[in-house]
Amino acid sequence: MDYYSSYISKLIEELSKLPGVGSKSAQRLAFHIINRPIEEVQGLADAIVQAKEKVRYCKECYTLTDQEICPICANPARDHSTIMVVENTRDLAAYEKTGKFNGVYHVLHGAISPMLGIGPNEIKLKELMKRMQGEIKEVIIATNSSLEGETTAMYISKLIKPAGIKVSRIASGVPVGGDLEYIDEVTLLRALEGRVEL
Amino acid sequence: MDYYSSYISKLIEELSKLPGVGSKSAQRLAFHIINRPIEEVQGLADAIVQAKEKVRYCKECYTLTDQEICPICANPARDHSTIMVVENTRDLAAYEKTGKFNGVYHVLHGAISPMLGIGPNEIKLKELMKRMQGEIKEVIIATNSSLEGETTAMYISKLIKPAGIKVSRIASGVPVGGDLEYIDEVTLLRALEGRVEL
Repeated sequence: MDYYSSYISKLIEELSKLPGVGSKSAQRLAFHIINRPIEEVQGLADAIVQAKEKVRYCKECYTLTDQEICPICANPARDHSTIMVVENTRDLAAYEKTGKFNGVYHVLHGAISPMLGIGPNEIKLKELMKRMQGEIKEVIIATNSSLEGETTAMYISKLIKPAGIKVSRIASGVPVGGDLEYIDEVTLLRALEGRVEL
Repeated sequence: MDYYSSYISKLIEELSKLPGVGSKSAQRLAFHIINRPIEEVQGLADAIVQAKEKVRYCKECYTLTDQEICPICANPARDHSTIMVVENTRDLAAYEKTGKFNGVYHVLHGAISPMLGIGPNEIKLKELMKRMQGEIKEVIIATNSSLEGETTAMYISKLIKPAGIKVSRIASGVPVGGDLEYIDEVTLLRALEGRVEL
C-alpha cells in the first residue's frame, strides 16, 4: 500500500485489530481521524491509554473500576447479602440501567465453555465462592441464556446450594414485545415451562 | 453511568464520536481495548496521534501523505501529463489497487454539493486549475457516480475544456458480475447510452 502514507497504513492496521472492524471500516475510521482537529484526536488517544492504565478489577465483585472497591460495592445502601452473578461488566451495566436491582454483583469475566477450553478456573468462580463465607441470603445467576451461560449457571448452583444458600436463575421466555411467530422453539418451550398463574 | 469507571465512560464517549460507531459498539470496543495488553493499546493510541501529526497534503496532488510530495507524484516513471481527478484518497487507493493507471491524481477532498453548502471553493479545485498551466494531455474525471460527483464532473469539464485540454469521464454502467434484474433504471439507461460496438 505505498499509495498511502506509512502512518495511515499503520493506523488502518491497528484499527483493523478491533472487533467488528474490517479493513474497509478501518480505512473509513482512519481518514475520519486524520480529518479531525488535533485536540479531538489527542483526546481519543488519551482516553484509550487512560482507560487501559487506570481501570482494574474491583476487589469485591471483580467488575472493572478505577477504585479499589467499585461504587456499587462501596455503597452501604445496597443489599450486600444478595449477589447477582453476571458474565461481564456490560451485563452488570444492563441490569443497573433498569434501576430496580438493589443488591450487589459478581462479575465472572466469562462463562464455562468446554468448546473454547474455558474451565471453572478461567473465570472468577473461586472469588465468588470466597464471598459465600460472608452473610449471603441469595445468589441470583444472571449468566446469558446460551449453552455456556446455562452450563455456568448449573455449575455455580451445584457449588453453592449445598452451603444452604438460596440460588435462583433469571427467567427465560418470550421477550416483552416479542412476536410468538418469530420466537424459536426452545424459547417457546421455556416460556411454557416457566408459566406463572394469573 | 456511575456503574462504569469514569475512564471507561470517557473512552466510550470518545469512541462514539467515530463514524458508524453507536453507543453499543463503543461499549464493545472499549471493553475490548481494556482487555488487551498495554503494548497493543499503546500501539493503537500512538498510531492515532502519529497519523494525525505526520500526515499532510501532497503539494502536488493533495492526497494525504507524510512527505512534501507523495510517492506517486515523486515517481518519474508515472505519466505526469494525465491527471485523474478523484473525490478523496480512498478513491485514489481504489484505482491504485487496479495497478493499471499510470498517470497521476488530483484529490479534491469532497464534491460540489449545494445541499450541504459545499461550493467549488470548498474543494481543491483552484489547485487543480493551477496544475493546468503545466503540460497536461488529459484530465480523467473519476468523481463518484452520485448527484454531487456528476455535478462536480460537469463543473470541472466546463472549466478545463476551453483551455483545449482533453477531459474524459470514467464510464458508468452495469458493474461487472452485476445482475441486470437488480440494477436501477438510471444505471440501465446509462449502460445503454454508453454501449460500445463489439
